[in-house]
Amino acid sequence: MDYFEYRRGVLHVENVPVAEIAQAVGTPAYIYSERTLREHYDKLQHAFAQINPLVCYSVKSCSNLSILRLLAEMGSGFDIVSGGELYRVLKAGGSADKCFYAGAGKTDDEIRYALGEGIFMFNIESEAELENIGRIASEMGKEARCALRVNPDIDPKTHAYTSTGKKETKFGVDIERAENVLLKYRDLPGVSLSGIHLHIGSPIFETKPYVEAIGKALKLIERMKSHGIVIDTLDFGGGYAASYETGTYTQIEDYAEAIVPLLKDKGLKLVMEPGRFISANAGLLLSRVQYVKQGGQKSFVILDTGMHHLIRPPLYDSFHFIWPAEPGEEMTPPLRGVDVPLEGLQKADVVGPICETGDCLAKDRPLPPVQRGDLMAIFTAGAYGMAMASQYNSQPRPAEVLVSHENFRIIRRRESYEDLVRGEE
Amino acid sequence: MDYFEYRRGVLHVENVPVAEIAQAVGTPAYIYSERTLREHYDKLQHAFAQINPLVCYSVKSCSNLSILRLLAEMGSGFDIVSGGELYRVLKAGGSADKCFYAGAGKTDDEIRYALGEGIFMFNIESEAELENIGRIASEMGKEARCALRVNPDIDPKTHAYTSTGKKETKFGVDIERAENVLLKYRDLPGVSLSGIHLHIGSPIFETKPYVEAIGKALKLIERMKSHGIVIDTLDFGGGYAASYETGTYTQIEDYAEAIVPLLKDKGLKLVMEPGRFISANAGLLLSRVQYVKQGGQKSFVILDTGMHHLIRPPLYDSFHFIWPAEPGEEMTPPLRGVDVPLEGLQKADVVGPICETGDCLAKDRPLPPVQRGDLMAIFTAGAYGMAMASQYNSQPRPAEVLVSHENFRIIRRRESYEDLVRGEE
Repeated sequence: MDYFEYRRGVLHVENVPVAEIAQAVGTPAYIYSERTLREHYDKLQHAFAQINPLVCYSVKSCSNLSILRLLAEMGSGFDIVSGGELYRVLKAGGSADKCFYAGAGKTDDEIRYALGEGIFMFNIESEAELENIGRIASEMGKEARCALRVNPDIDPKTHAYTSTGKKETKFGVDIERAENVLLKYRDLPGVSLSGIHLHIGSPIFETKPYVEAIGKALKLIERMKSHGIVIDTLDFGGGYAASYETGTYTQIEDYAEAIVPLLKDKGLKLVMEPGRFISANAGLLLSRVQYVKQGGQKSFVILDTGMHHLIRPPLYDSFHFIWPAEPGEEMTPPLRGVDVPLEGLQKADVVGPICETGDCLAKDRPLPPVQRGDLMAIFTAGAYGMAMASQYNSQPRPAEVLVSHENFRIIRRRESYEDLVRGEE
Repeated sequence: MDYFEYRRGVLHVENVPVAEIAQAVGTPAYIYSERTLREHYDKLQHAFAQINPLVCYSVKSCSNLSILRLLAEMGSGFDIVSGGELYRVLKAGGSADKCFYAGAGKTDDEIRYALGEGIFMFNIESEAELENIGRIASEMGKEARCALRVNPDIDPKTHAYTSTGKKETKFGVDIERAENVLLKYRDLPGVSLSGIHLHIGSPIFETKPYVEAIGKALKLIERMKSHGIVIDTLDFGGGYAASYETGTYTQIEDYAEAIVPLLKDKGLKLVMEPGRFISANAGLLLSRVQYVKQGGQKSFVILDTGMHHLIRPPLYDSFHFIWPAEPGEEMTPPLRGVDVPLEGLQKADVVGPICETGDCLAKDRPLPPVQRGDLMAIFTAGAYGMAMASQYNSQPRPAEVLVSHENFRIIRRRESYEDLVRGEE
């Protein structure tokens, strides 16, 4: 669900035609819809209202300060994975006491920074890390609230690179060993180990993996109670899907329907970490066709953006719907997907300017006739888009734009050539 | 071949122990050896001396200004693929009239910039691009020297993402169509289409693909002569391998032995585009172990660097040799490879701090005992390392350091948190 729609054959973000933004800001540009961000956050809060979770937006999915500020003002907490993300949250007016800090490689400096700012809780990814946090907190005369990340050994059926809750990952502790870890470290100085954290991957299109994982976590919490160890916080993670293709979307209400009954009235402080669900559909990447070419039997649509700005297609084999921004009424897509039921489409590879064959955003994609100068929209690019962008081939990173109703503003300026060499001698 | 070697169990870059650099600069850091860069450049020039090619270093492989400056001072030309790369070359004291400009998506602004600076030659990737360059050059009252990129339809047996000379790629024109293109555009205003460009992929470990491709190009040049069209320049590309593993290296002399006889006394101006060959072995990525953990049956060595700084392993499934920087004499590796013939090694996954399972630099890699705080060196990381680095997970990018004999200096400072939000509102 989002507010990117074709009106009389022209793509609008909320009430702004994207061509107007391209005119003012140039291409490529990431364009976000404020209303989409707000509605996703509201929708999620509403769906899970009965268990009143602390919603911690996953900063890594899309970390622009203006987007963090908007969410902070709505009351959101934040799921962070680095000192840099904590810096962003604080700079955006968010507060550390609503931040969950995850990640398998927290450095000493990052731990000190988070403790100094009064972080709500650390997610613990290994015993070595727990001991280290205890040591640093003790030196600082603080007590670190910690949640043990538990791998419930469940296959979330997502890409191998983003599946994180199986056995043998770098994240967390296997559920069989969790009990021993909780017992072993019950009296560790500097630490209050009073939470459990689950995160099994992203995106997850079924509710069953959540139900299984939460079931295992609740049993663990029960067992710990019998040892006199009180777990008062459960972070049941993120991974809720976005709508990359029409019809493949799992509604947030469906997740809630499966999850809420399990957690209601359990006396636990609950935390959830949506990222993609909030940001993915709220952003698109707008590009301009540089050339259309015939190579062998194939057509290529060559854009001014590519894998350096959106690495998901080559890295995860991800699907993004791509369509001209002004195709006319007869070529307005009735759905987003590989096969759009319209006459007169022609297959093409949609590629970028980077000098490698892997710089391909879509292969053999049926498209309306496209020509040099046309604007092309790459949909559902709000999550893990700009956040993973590089300057590969010495290409400056795109501008970011936030649309609200009839207005838009630049929330990150386009990089210049000077930005490429900053810090070099 | 490089100047990263263990002396009495301690890794040195030229004459500097890497621990000394870590002490001064911190980790992670890309460390380059000036002597390695220079020797590679010299070796290549020497191997191909009989045909006196213009060596155009491929800027995209490693684009730090100090490295470009060093090569420019040695007389190198440059293979560039963007306006940003031209900016870098000029800033480093290189000259545009030694630059070959390739890439399938050159924008109008980039073409104008290159023409204005007096670029040596454009590589032409499509007919649409050729027409566009002709139009812009005419408007500017200039004539653009152009080389048609030809796909010889040869399988270079490298990763699909970096194989570029087969039919049906976004690059260049199929060899069967090349003749027609050269005839069709012989009188195009603003353009002198007097070169042929070959580039079939990277890295290529055999000489045969080069021999085949050059053979086809020479035949094409002959055929064009019979039409009264003079091709005076042949850019025979790059793709020469680096030494990622001991023993799998193709020597530059072997390439030269195969290529030189084909091109000697042909009356052609010759150009070559080595990138990886010069920069890959000249750089390593130095990291510090943050945690060692046991997850299920597996061990994980968690570093302060990962896919955000070196994306080659998850993106291309690339091998990088990884070893402690101070393993002691008995654990000094006699070779670089997956299987190091030493007693007492244990398998581990070497992973980074990024919150995804794909952030893995080596899987099940036999390593000496490693502990928290140890320095780890990731070898042969000079090419497509820092050049592809991102700030994913809001992690600042590493410092870059250049070593020369007993000295080292920072050639790009480590990014700060302020750098992460630069340009944001």
